[in-house]
Parts: sequence; C-alpha cells; structure tokens
Amino acid sequence: MNPQTRALLMQVSAATLCTVLFKRGLRNQFIQGVHPLNPARPNMVGPAFTLRYMPAREDLNPISVFNDHGHPQRQAVERCPEGAVLVMDSRKDARAASAGGILMCRLMQRGVAGAVTDGGFRDSPDIARLDFCAYHQRPSAPTNLTLHQAIDIDVPIGCGDVAVWPGDIVVGDAEGVVVIPAASAEEVAREAHEMTVFEDFVQEQVLAGRSILGLYPPTEERSRTDFAAWRQARGR
Amino acid sequence: MNPQTRALLMQVSAATLCTVLFKRGLRNQFIQGVHPLNPARPNMVGPAFTLRYMPAREDLNPISVFNDHGHPQRQAVERCPEGAVLVMDSRKDARAASAGGILMCRLMQRGVAGAVTDGGFRDSPDIARLDFCAYHQRPSAPTNLTLHQAIDIDVPIGCGDVAVWPGDIVVGDAEGVVVIPAASAEEVAREAHEMTVFEDFVQEQVLAGRSILGLYPPTEERSRTDFAAWRQARGR
Amino acid sequence: MNPQTRALLMQVSAATLCTVLFKRGLRNQFIQGVHPLNPARPNMVGPAFTLRYMPAREDLNPISVFNDHGHPQRQAVERCPEGAVLVMDSRKDARAASAGGILMCRLMQRGVAGAVTDGGFRDSPDIARLDFCAYHQRPSAPTNLTLHQAIDIDVPIGCGDVAVWPGDIVVGDAEGVVVIPAASAEEVAREAHEMTVFEDFVQEQVLAGRSILGLYPPTEERSRTDFAAWRQARGR
Amino acid sequence: MNPQTRALLMQVSAATLCTVLFKRGLRNQFIQGVHPLNPARPNMVGPAFTLRYMPAREDLNPISVFNDHGHPQRQAVERCPEGAVLVMDSRKDARAASAGGILMCRLMQRGVAGAVTDGGFRDSPDIARLDFCAYHQRPSAPTNLTLHQAIDIDVPIGCGDVAVWPGDIVVGDAEGVVVIPAASAEEVAREAHEMTVFEDFVQEQVLAGRSILGLYPPTEERSRTDFAAWRQARGR
Amino acid sequence: MNPQTRALLMQVSAATLCTVLFKRGLRNQFIQGVHPLNPARPNMVGPAFTLRYMPAREDLNPISVFNDHGHPQRQAVERCPEGAVLVMDSRKDARAASAGGILMCRLMQRGVAGAVTDGGFRDSPDIARLDFCAYHQRPSAPTNLTLHQAIDIDVPIGCGDVAVWPGDIVVGDAEGVVVIPAASAEEVAREAHEMTVFEDFVQEQVLAGRSILGLYPPTEERSRTDFAAWRQARGR
Amino acid sequence: MNPQTRALLMQVSAATLCTVLFKRGLRNQFIQGVHPLNPARPNMVGPAFTLRYMPAREDLNPISVFNDHGHPQRQAVERCPEGAVLVMDSRKDARAASAGGILMCRLMQRGVAGAVTDGGFRDSPDIARLDFCAYHQRPSAPTNLTLHQAIDIDVPIGCGDVAVWPGDIVVGDAEGVVVIPAASAEEVAREAHEMTVFEDFVQEQVLAGRSILGLYPPTEERSRTDFAAWRQARGR
Repeated sequence: MNPQTRALLMQVSAATLCTVLFKRGLRNQFIQGVHPLNPARPNMVGPAFTLRYMPAREDLNPISVFNDHGHPQRQAVERCPEGAVLVMDSRKDARAASAGGILMCRLMQRGVAGAVTDGGFRDSPDIARLDFCAYHQRPSAPTNLTLHQAIDIDVPIGCGDVAVWPGDIVVGDAEGVVVIPAASAEEVAREAHEMTVFEDFVQEQVLAGRSILGLYPPTEERSRTDFAAWRQARGR
Repeated sequence: MNPQTRALLMQVSAATLCTVLFKRGLRNQFIQGVHPLNPARPNMVGPAFTLRYMPAREDLNPISVFNDHGHPQRQAVERCPEGAVLVMDSRKDARAASAGGILMCRLMQRGVAGAVTDGGFRDSPDIARLDFCAYHQRPSAPTNLTLHQAIDIDVPIGCGDVAVWPGDIVVGDAEGVVVIPAASAEEVAREAHEMTVFEDFVQEQVLAGRSILGLYPPTEERSRTDFAAWRQARGR
Repeated sequence: MNPQTRALLMQVSAATLCTVLFKRGLRNQFIQGVHPLNPARPNMVGPAFTLRYMPAREDLNPISVFNDHGHPQRQAVERCPEGAVLVMDSRKDARAASAGGILMCRLMQRGVAGAVTDGGFRDSPDIARLDFCAYHQRPSAPTNLTLHQAIDIDVPIGCGDVAVWPGDIVVGDAEGVVVIPAASAEEVAREAHEMTVFEDFVQEQVLAGRSILGLYPPTEERSRTDFAAWRQARGR
Repeated sequence: MNPQTRALLMQVSAATLCTVLFKRGLRNQFIQGVHPLNPARPNMVGPAFTLRYMPAREDLNPISVFNDHGHPQRQAVERCPEGAVLVMDSRKDARAASAGGILMCRLMQRGVAGAVTDGGFRDSPDIARLDFCAYHQRPSAPTNLTLHQAIDIDVPIGCGDVAVWPGDIVVGDAEGVVVIPAASAEEVAREAHEMTVFEDFVQEQVLAGRSILGLYPPTEERSRTDFAAWRQARGR
Repeated sequence: MNPQTRALLMQVSAATLCTVLFKRGLRNQFIQGVHPLNPARPNMVGPAFTLRYMPAREDLNPISVFNDHGHPQRQAVERCPEGAVLVMDSRKDARAASAGGILMCRLMQRGVAGAVTDGGFRDSPDIARLDFCAYHQRPSAPTNLTLHQAIDIDVPIGCGDVAVWPGDIVVGDAEGVVVIPAASAEEVAREAHEMTVFEDFVQEQVLAGRSILGLYPPTEERSRTDFAAWRQARGR
Repeated sequence: MNPQTRALLMQVSAATLCTVLFKRGLRNQFIQGVHPLNPARPNMVGPAFTLRYMPAREDLNPISVFNDHGHPQRQAVERCPEGAVLVMDSRKDARAASAGGILMCRLMQRGVAGAVTDGGFRDSPDIARLDFCAYHQRPSAPTNLTLHQAIDIDVPIGCGDVAVWPGDIVVGDAEGVVVIPAASAEEVAREAHEMTVFEDFVQEQVLAGRSILGLYPPTEERSRTDFAAWRQARGR
C-alpha cells in the first residue's frame, strides 16, 4: 500500500476513522467485539488478506489434516503478503481457536502487519508478548479443528459483522479495528489526519478550561481563528 | 439424487436421522434455530445448492444492484437445480431478509425442493401459503441489501452452525432440518428407515401400556421376538 | 391521520414499506423481534402514541401503585387517541409483561388501532382472540411491576431497536411492524402502493413460468410494456 | 396433591398466579422462555418431579448407555408419579433434545400430568398431537446424548431461571408455566380463584365501555358494590 | 451531597453496598456489564445526572447536528453539575459510542465526579489515562450518531438493567457501579462503613487461620467479643 | 493427586491439553467464558471439588441463612480438600456473585489450589491480589443470595458448558481452564509434556525463520531429525 497513507494511518485513531467513514455514508466499518491482545502496541495498518472458516464436521477434521501442506489455514499463514493484515471470518464463534501462538510467530517473522479474528486465539498469553498486532474476541484454548474448518483464502468475508474485501485497508489501535474500503483509503487517511490535528487542538483547549460549545465543532468564528493560529504555531 | 434414497428420506424424521448420524460420530448436523414456515407440509428432501451472504457495505448495495442479471442472489434462484434445496448462509442474522416471496415462487415454479436460511424470509405469510418447503429463523421484512450481500454460489458454507457442502443431502420435517454428508446418504436413509419401523412398533407397545425398560432399546429378548412377529404381521 | 394514506397502508406489506424506506436511506425502521399475537388479522395502521418503561425498583413498585389513577401505564391506556397505535419501550425485556388482557380490551373498546411492545404481553391467549392488533416478542405472565416501571407518555422512544417518534405512522401485518416517519407517510404509502401493484404482476408472471431475470426488476423493455398492458387490463 | 387445589388451579391463568405470588414477595416463579407444544390443551397442574441434566462428555454417552435400565432419564420416566409434572433442568440449552416422543407417550400412558424442559423436545410434531401437556423452548432433533447427561432425579433444580423444588405445584396454561411453592399452594390457588372472578367482572365491564380507572383496581366504592352485585347475580 | 456521606462512600466497596441494599429489599442496584476504564482509580461517588439515548434515525442524525449548541449530548456535558456522575442510558448497545475523549475531558475539567454508560466509550485508551472515573461495557469507536440519538436530560432512566433516578447516589469501585436511592444514601453509607470495619476484622482473622464458621457471620459469642476488642484496639 | 502428574501439569498450557484431549475424542473440556482474575500467576492444578448452585427463591434466601453453619456454600469452603480446586456451577449467570473475597481468603489459607465459577466473584479486586488462583466470567458485586442458592456439594456439575465430575483434574493457566477426566490424567499429562517440548522446538525454529510447512506437524524427515538433535542438545 501507499507508504504515505500507511504513515498517516499509523497516527490516527479508529474512532477518528469511523467518523470520517460515517460522513461518507459508511456506518458499519468497525469490527464489533474484538480487542488487541497487547493494547500497548502501535497501530496495525495494512491491506486485508482473508481466511474464511466454516463449521467443522467431525469426520473431515481429524488432527491429521495438518499433514496436508495445502491446508488453507497453513497456506494462509505462508501466503499472507508482507505488510498485510490476516483477517479471519470465524463466524464470531470463540468456543474454539482461530489460530495459535506458533502461527502468529510465523506471521510476525514473515513481516505480516497483524492478525484479526472475530473468534479467539489460543496461546493468547504468548501472543500478547510477541512484537505483533493481534486482535480477537477472547482467549480460546481448543484447537480450531474442534469447530472451525478453514475453507477459502482471499475471498470477501464478514468479520465482527463488517464486510471485509481483500485489499481493504485495515487499521487497528488500542480500541479496536476499522476497515477502510481500498478505493478511498488515501482520502480517508488525509481527512482523518486533518481531524486529528484539530482534535488535538480541541483537547488542549478543553484541558485549559474552554467549553465545547462553539469549539467542538467549531461553530464560532473564534474557534476557527484560534485553531489556525495554534496550527501555525505548532507547525502542523 | 437416488430416487430410492429420496423416497426413504421422505418418510423418516429429522430426529431419527440425527440419531443415525450420532452413531457415526456426527453430532452437529441439525441446523440450529430454524423452523418451517408451513409445518403441515411433507418432508423436504434434496441435495444442497448453496448461497453465501456476507455483510453488506452501504455503497455496494443500492437497490440498483438487482439491475445486474448476474447478481449472485438472482443467479442462485435461476441456477439452483430442480430437486435441490437452496441453503443460504445468512450468518444467523435475521435483522434483514435472506429472500422474499417472489424468489420463493420462482424456486417453486422451477421444481426446487425447498429453501433454508439461518436468517429470515420476508413476505413470510405469502411463502407459508406456497406449495413449497421453506425454513428460517424468523420473519424479516427489510430487503436483504440492508445487511446481506450475496457473494458466492455453490461453495461450502455454514448454516445454523452446521457445515453444508454442496451436494449434501438436506432433509427437513416439521421439526427442522438435518444435513447428511453426500457419501453416506443411502446408508443413513436405510438405517433411518429401519429405526423408524422399530420405533413405530415401540410407540404402539407403549400406547398399549408397556414399559420402556427392556423395550426401548430392546435389551430383553422378548422385545426382539415381539418386534419380529409384529413386523412380519404388518409386512414392513 | 389522512384517511387515504391509511387506506393505502391497509393494503401494503411491511416488506414493501421497508424497501420504500430503504430507498430513502432509512434502513432501520422494522421493529426487530416482534410478531402479531393473531397473524390472521388485517393490517394495523395508525400514528404512534408512546409509553416508556424503565427498570422497576422494588420499593417503588408494590401492587398498590395501581391505586393511583395517574399511573402512567393506566393513563397511557386511557389517553391513547382513537385510531392511534400504542407503542411501548420495554427495553426488549420480556421477562415480565408490558401489559395484559384487560388493558388491551380497554384499548380495543376505545377504538385504538393496536398495541406494540418489544417485551411481552400477559394473558396472551386472551389477547390473541380479541378483535385487536397486538404485537410482542413472547408471552410473559409476570405483572409488569416485577421489572418495568411506566415513566413517560408520548415521548420519543426505542422499540425493538427502532426510533419511534410520537406521530410516526406505524404499520403492522402478519410479518411484523414498520415505522414510517410522519412527514413522509403519504409519499411512502403511495410509492408502496405502486410497488405492490407491480409485484402482484410479477408474482403472476413468475407463477406462469417466467424467469425473474429482466422482470424483477424490469430491466427488459418487454417487462415494462407487459406490465403496462396488465395494469390497464386489470384497471389498477 | 389436594384435589380441590388442583381443581382451582385448572381454572386460573399463569398470569393471575404470578400476581398472587408477586404480592407474597415471589417475583421469579414464571419459567422463562418455554411454551406449550399444543396451546389448545387445558391447564397442566401437578407436583414437580425433577430430572437434572449436566453437560454430556463424549466417552460417557455412547448410544449404548440406554441399555442400562437404571439410566436416570429412563428411570425418571418410569418413576415420575401419576399426576405429577416431570420438570427437566436442561440448562436452557435446546441444541440437543431433553426427551422425545416415545418417552412422552410413556409418561402420558402412566398418568403423568405433563412435562417441562427449558431445552427442547424431539419428535415435537408427534408430541403436539398427544393428549399430554408438554412445554419446551424450541424443537430439537438431536438425541439428548449429544449434549445432555441425565444425572439426578428428584433433586432441587433450576428450570428457565426458576427454582423448582420437588413437590412444588407446577401450573401451565397456553401462556407458559408457573411454579408455586408447595407450602402455599392452597392459599395461592384460593386467592387466584378470587382474583379470576373479579377479573372476569372487570373484563365484562370494560367490554361494556367502562374505564379502567377506579375499576381496575377497584379504588372507587361503586366498583366494589357493582362487583358484589355481579357476583351474587352470577352465583360465583 | 452530604460530604460525610461522600467520605464514607469513598471507602466502601460496591459489594458491601449491594449487601446493605439487599437487606433493604433492593436486589437490583448493581449496573450489569460495566467496568472501569481505569481500575486503579479511587471510588467514584456522586449524585446521578442522566442522559437518555434512543435509537438514531439516519435522516435526523447527520454529523451537522452537533452544530446545534442545544444538542442534548453536548448540553448534558455542559450542564452536569460539579460533583455529579453523568449516567447514560445507551440501551446496553455498545456497537456505537456513547461519548468520547474530548467530552470526558470537559466533564473532568468541570469537576464532574465520573461518567457511566451501559454502552461503550470511544477514545477509550485516552479516557483510561485521564484523572477521571469512567465505566462502560466495551470500547466502541463509531460516533454515537451511528446508533444513538441523545433525547432527554435528567430524567429517570435504565442503565445496565438498573433504575437510575436523578439524584440517586452512584458509587463505583474497581468492580463496578452501584446505585443507592437518594433517600437512604446516608443510612446505607453508615451501615456499609460498619460492615467494612467488621469485614476487615474477619479478613485478618481468616488470614490468621480461623474458620469462617461462627465468625462470618459472627454467630459465636467469641467472634463478637473478639471483634469488639479488635475494634477498640484499632480505634475504628 | 499424583505429584508427578501435578508437576507436569504445572508446566503445560490449557491449549496443549485441549489438543491432547481432542485426539482422544474429547472436544468439549475447555470451560467457556472464564478467565483468571490474576493472569500473572502460575498454573492452577488439582482435582475438582464441586459446588452446585440453583436459582434462589426470595423466601428461602434472606441474609440470615448464613447463620446456619451447615449452609452448603460455607461447607464447601470448609470441606474442599487441600490441593483441590473448588468448581462452582453458577449456571453461567454472573448477575450475582458466586462467592467473595473472604471465602477466597479462607480457601487460600486452607491450601486449596484454586476456585472456578462460570458466574462472577465479588470483591474481585481483592481476590486478584491474593496468592490464589481464581477464574470467573466477570466481576459481580451482588451477594450470591440475590440469585444463587447453594444446594449440593461434590456432585457432578456443569461449568461453562463442560461436564465436571468430582475428582477430574482441573488445570488453569493465563488463558483459561481445562478439565481432564480423572482416569486419563497421567497419560494426558505425559503426552502434553511431550507436545510442549516439541512446540518449544518449533517456536524456536519459526523465530529463526523456518516455514511451518513440513515442520508443524513434522511431516518432513528433516524436522524429526532436527528435533531429535535439538532435544538431545537441550537435555529435555
């Protein structure tokens, strides 16, 4: 993806992005019910590479399926591009794992930007200590074969009730994960950057005792001139 | 599908089929949370033809998408084979419809055996009056574009937490819907038929005042000889 | 409300209304999770008159509160205008009743058009036999005082996740209930009527063996001319 | 149980009983989320006889467990006293059945008054046609061994979030099921009978056009004298 | 509020307060499903000032609504009294935010004691770092306009299934939030203080190896005399 | 329990144990929806000692019930054997507490290995600071009498949808809790230990840049010889 867009998205919040998308009529781009295993990490930014799970049927999912190098889960881990985010459709079912610590290690080692499931990860305490961004619903120790069969790679999926198309730009912060349609990512990133600068100004003013009325949004002329001056002074 | 298998499956219950599948280690073949719109109909039997929905993004799902003859929902309705069952993965979300009355009419008219969604149908009162088997979670008036985007046809899906592979044999009765793996359908049908004959005998005995102990299952020799005599007498 | 609008709305379905509203950007006007106690009744149509419940605190809700003629639940029943629909915000909690048979009788007797709760009614078998439209989530025998305190009349509320403003036009059929913003009710009714005529034509064509492609929506010229002819022939 | 108490309870509603219990400080005696398989039947009345299920472990629950005549589920069916109600704690889990048609037949044949589960029954269409009262959450075809292991008979249990002690009086109508503590059953039955007579009077008055204010509850003197006269006239 | 009451409530736990309220027949005063964004903070104590949200209708909730200085959400933030707790009824829906970081800053700066929603806050990582008590269900990045319309200020509401009346005393600790009816706050605070002293004694005894039987509650005379001595020795 | 088995189980993860159990056909041994109050603690290992709660009826559960030294909750705390794990069936209902800080102190002081509820603990911040392993769903301040009546000790129960038989070996780590049938505990512990050694090897290889294909599982001969060498070199 565009390095400038990535750089901008590293510095904005999921909340700000949601507002920018809301203004474009996209009201449902925040993946519901997931959180970062390690909330202290920097933003996760990258294009979506997807993995679709379906319910597992017992006879098709013995432990031996992993002997097949072509198993979609393992293929997803080896083929997810550097810099991309692996997004998994686990049908919001965290009763069995979507993946575990070793696969997350491999993704990290391959330069993947992060991983998201609307189910749960196993080995979650280990994953939380990796230098890697991972988001899930809750820890889940049972192997994915218990309930999930990996079936498709790089197809459009749902994750946490959000449409995820391969190539959409996925951004995660300590709050959660937002999905930006590929075509509007640059524009959204720029607008979110502008909005972040303004909100930094507002925050400072509010901490200095100013009311939000007239300031947020800046319906008073004074708010706009103050912001212009502040921005110039800060060089932002 | 094999007409003899179909004939047998028209006469057995979802409950009996679940027990036969349970004995083969398949514990999760009953589609959870769906019921027939018209419970007075005969069984629905046919191979699965599938339709996968993903969450709808607003900008991709204006009402005009149906102007495209290739739209997967409309294609599914026109391509689902005669005698097959159209099974839809609606992610168990009934807040918007999976399909409505006109599409069900068209399926009926084309000789399709039935339709199942783990979401909801709209025009449900009309559908309930058709000469057609339909199963859903609950009525849902909003157009599918509100929340569901049709994306794939005839791929493996989940429906009501059950794995559905294209070609699996789908059987519905007044209780609900069970999915039989294609490869074992004939064998399962035969065993379910045998079990049904035995349970008819048991039911008759119980109504005549006999205890279930030793009879159901027939752990007493007498139960087995009585059944043999009963079966011969009835010619079953 | 306008009698012509009412007449039109008596003849269209909740599904059709949802599509008309969807085209206007209103995607969330179908009250989720409620159904009619008696699905054989004609449509329910009328402006919303609302009642808001909040959680009941034990010390404020002994049985004696109903000795107060000013109790908001009883006031709502006596003040809901003739022809209106009493819509109750029960916070989707059906563990205790929103109201019971005697209050429904009184509403019916007063000429109220119907009642909707996103909780449950008690005496539901009796209510189902009244000449009155009532919609709820599920039967609930416990008195409302157990969990619900009536607190406000004729204020904007939520019902089944839908915004309901006093005066909005509420339409219920055998499928469920849809809420039309007051200002657009006439226009929506007219468009829904037109759409119903067209769908009657489509249904007839489909039952006669015609494909939905090109017909629904009528992307082919022939569909539009056939419809024009059909409409003229039927005088609709 | 006392035949007079039973006779009174055959004629009152679950709703009325809930109000009588509410006045005694018992706010949680209505079994949540269950309904009758056949709502056209008379009331179900009888003392509770209980069966407790726990989650099934695969190795302990092959189909062969029913060869054991001592299996608690089968014992419960053979030992539940005539006139009693078999109440099952299925942990509100209807993904597998609590029992099926043959066991319900046997209970009916043995003179048991009814059966309640907070899970689901299999063979539910057959059960609905029996001369027997049965209440559940929803139909469920999978055998109980899939998820439920019968473990205890006649112990205190929970059913639909309600405490059920063996011997409590269980009353079901078309709306649902209420549990009356054994010690207060007679008193509760008498008060519910009185309340039913009064509500019949109120219903008649309301249908004749009278306001509920002052009548229900009868805060006006006139309401009380009218009721006295009405009661005498009807001989109730 | 009474400074002594506040001082006492700063030192007791939500758990102890729930027990004191339970003894008074109030069983449902703990806000279900919320937790502090920063669990390391001191107690939050103050009278409730409320904000009610209803579902948002798309046409009434464009981003421009915040240009109106009278918008109820913004008014709530500017009018919530110093020392009060802003409690929001978000219908337990955390799919969109109830409020965000800048509004929390403003509340903090204005001397408000804390904020509670039964939905979610956006900018939650920022809020967690403020010198301010905030409680929610889970982080939620989408702007409140997506799903919530602020409609009323300082009316009785529900929050997490609890009745909250303006002026009720709200107490939050690291475990959660409890609501004390205004009229009994002083009495409850005093009793909770007494109970806390006793439980400190019990905890010390238990850590020293004493059984809870006879001690907790102090059914043995020795427990009561030991406590009296301990209390005198500690000057509590 | 066997000290060697305990020692092995102190060093393996819940995830590894789930896989070993999955291979034996046990797919449902991970307690769903619970997490440790203090995730930094070492593993919790011990045989299950159980406590069953049922729904509380108001008249049977005044605060005075704890004056009875024989109350099952208090008995459970005093009788749970040293080294065992107290597992509570709270019907997954965390709206009221399963137990609180003083009881956890007493269990810790008595040498109990830990406590698990599928509901919630009160005084959860205090419990998190104890030298004691405790697992629950979420904090819950209301006293257990509000919703839970302790009824049975040391009977088979369900906890988080898992069957727990007294004497089963319960293992908790930072991810969650797994239940091992008593009879297979030693064998499972040994296999889990072996698997842990292998996964430590795999993790090291992956961090060094090796692909998971052929390595995990070790389908390539080289993976097996490398592991043998690594193991010898590490003396494991």
